[in-house]
Amino acid sequence: MSFDPATLVYDPNGLIPAIAQDHATGEVLMMAWMNAEAVARTLETGRVTYWSRSRQAFWIKGESSGHVQRLIEMRVDCDRDCLLVEVDQTGPACHTNRRACFYTAIRDGEEVELMAPEA
Amino acid sequence: MSFDPATLVYDPNGLIPAIAQDHATGEVLMMAWMNAEAVARTLETGRVTYWSRSRQAFWIKGESSGHVQRLIEMRVDCDRDCLLVEVDQTGPACHTNRRACFYTAIRDGEEVELMAPEA
Repeated sequence: MSFDPATLVYDPNGLIPAIAQDHATGEVLMMAWMNAEAVARTLETGRVTYWSRSRQAFWIKGESSGHVQRLIEMRVDCDRDCLLVEVDQTGPACHTNRRACFYTAIRDGEEVELMAPEA
Repeated sequence: MSFDPATLVYDPNGLIPAIAQDHATGEVLMMAWMNAEAVARTLETGRVTYWSRSRQAFWIKGESSGHVQRLIEMRVDCDRDCLLVEVDQTGPACHTNRRACFYTAIRDGEEVELMAPEA
């Protein structure tokens, strides 16, 4: 079946959450948002492109930092209201310069930092 | 630092997205939503508990299906507006009886089913 981004289920702001996973290691890198046009651009260009809610603009991941995400495969969930993007990540995915955004664990009720910023 | 669910960033409906990942295989299983009380219950009970937006009720994963998610570790992202839960998943995570919800890939503009429902 041919894929049309308009068939996805977007929230009232026209956005759908997209989880980025490192295709090689399986590490969950980050979660950000796409609108239908960002989904289409990601598929067309192979460069993962989000919609920045704070800037209200397209956000080609790595455009300024160089920490690009090359799309390996996009997947849609059962309810069509969430995306998983398998990516080839260059450099750290997190804006804090860590490999991934999920670097804080909750262990025995305490916050524990799992990874440091890269040099 | 002691963890307080109230310090997370919730959307206008009081919800935060939670990505469930199989702790053993790294497979991303599903994404659902929690409110602050669901976060607290998940940590207290070790049984992953979401907030069902459709039923407007707590949803202890697997309570009716038996397909429970035992919490291995909860992680918070850099912006504190998304959670990653590492889980030990019993049976299929998806309500379609598939191992994971992300069973549809977009390949060359076509939707491709990656996994079948379990028997």
